[in-house]
Amino acid sequence: MLLSVLQAHAEVLNVEANLRTIDEAAGRASQAGADILLTPELFPVGYAPQRLAAELDPAVLPGVRQRLAGIARRHGIGLVYSLPATPEELGDTSDGSSDGNGWQITATLLDADGVPVLHYGKVHLFGAEERAAFVPAQDPPGVVEFNGVRTSLLICYDVEFPEAVRAAATRGAELLLVPTALSAGFESVPQVIIRSRALESQLVVAYANHSGREDVYDFEGGSVVAGPDGSLLAAAGHAPTLLFAEIAPDAVRAARDDVPYLRERRPEVYRTWENSA
Amino acid sequence: MLLSVLQAHAEVLNVEANLRTIDEAAGRASQAGADILLTPELFPVGYAPQRLAAELDPAVLPGVRQRLAGIARRHGIGLVYSLPATPEELGDTSDGSSDGNGWQITATLLDADGVPVLHYGKVHLFGAEERAAFVPAQDPPGVVEFNGVRTSLLICYDVEFPEAVRAAATRGAELLLVPTALSAGFESVPQVIIRSRALESQLVVAYANHSGREDVYDFEGGSVVAGPDGSLLAAAGHAPTLLFAEIAPDAVRAARDDVPYLRERRPEVYRTWENSA
Repeated sequence: MLLSVLQAHAEVLNVEANLRTIDEAAGRASQAGADILLTPELFPVGYAPQRLAAELDPAVLPGVRQRLAGIARRHGIGLVYSLPATPEELGDTSDGSSDGNGWQITATLLDADGVPVLHYGKVHLFGAEERAAFVPAQDPPGVVEFNGVRTSLLICYDVEFPEAVRAAATRGAELLLVPTALSAGFESVPQVIIRSRALESQLVVAYANHSGREDVYDFEGGSVVAGPDGSLLAAAGHAPTLLFAEIAPDAVRAARDDVPYLRERRPEVYRTWENSA
Repeated sequence: MLLSVLQAHAEVLNVEANLRTIDEAAGRASQAGADILLTPELFPVGYAPQRLAAELDPAVLPGVRQRLAGIARRHGIGLVYSLPATPEELGDTSDGSSDGNGWQITATLLDADGVPVLHYGKVHLFGAEERAAFVPAQDPPGVVEFNGVRTSLLICYDVEFPEAVRAAATRGAELLLVPTALSAGFESVPQVIIRSRALESQLVVAYANHSGREDVYDFEGGSVVAGPDGSLLAAAGHAPTLLFAEIAPDAVRAARDDVPYLRERRPEVYRTWENSA
């Protein structure tokens, strides 16, 4: 399976411009033979928690989702996008309201027909601005088979916590797709942590960042795809770009036989440690 | 606090030669102003699980411990060494036997008077040979204050599991000392995983490896000290050497305020994930 990763600049609250960027990237990725395109955190609306909370009309979001589904369908490519959403909008019918309060930061995986096959809500919110604008989700990352590869989602700060990646890996994930909005100055996250997550939980981790200034945030790209041996399969500089990486589930399975971290972790022992901490 | 890390070659079952190596390193480290010397896994007896199980007389071990205490005392330096031990030898009085069966791979921290202040038994055994020769321990890493720095121990394969480092960090560890015996071909462990452990759990991690062939194992050094920002404070090549690194607890505390991973992890949510996995 060929994965493509979009590193790009979003214009805050300019949905038209951002959907054009995604549409153009999906076209290029599809022409190059990619099966799936990963885009950054909150890209269709721009990364700006406080402005989104104050200015983004929740009523526009269903239409944005339909247009993203149209992009996937038109180009015949899987697509991961990230948007604000209430749990109800993503199929949790316990409460029908979607009035813009109670937004999570979410990610959705569409198949090449534009059909949503996986949703995820961000569990670890980063910083005071995200916590003021969004509520944290609670559910573990799910896993779906996508083109023969067991695929999961996390968002940005989540992946810095080994516990979150373990939750995906122990559920069978071989490929972890991570929309992010990583500010300048945190280059050790893609260069050290992402590589370690891929190595210690033996999966491919793709991490798609913004590039340029959005609201008060400076993003410097640095998107990566790390393999289950901890190596970088692809790495971007600061500028907007489209990365490609071939995903070989066989490499994941070979790594899991070589050093069987997932089999040799001792969750029953760790549980006794939690109780004694 | 100045930390020294011994990377050296041990001769299998030649305790005299190995204690000479430690004694000489402790002298050099002490003269350089170091407060503590970290030595590799099973260094006083050599890394050779099957030969140790078959040929090492348990009756010699108390004497080896006394001589290691003498080295610490004579040079006025803290010392971390690793030896086979039964839990009873390390103060667990539930069973008085120490007949050579039931050995764990252990590490001990001596203060500069040669007094043991912390013991640890390896929880994650690596490979068929270790599992044939040793039993895995169950207890979490403890933490003691050593020269004003909250200090903990893990051994080799343990540190590759983020869960083990979390257990030390959530118990307050600021410095994690790790005797290891890492075979050639696994350079991503010190270069990627150790750096990530230091960064994600915000402590200093020191990792002391063997150098050269012992029994059937080829060791290629690569010992490191990683700081709480994920940078390398010190790094060895393949050859025997003595590394030094200044340990600043203030840097640990600053990192924990900068990105508060330990406060923002969500153990109560992770517990629900374990149950649903």
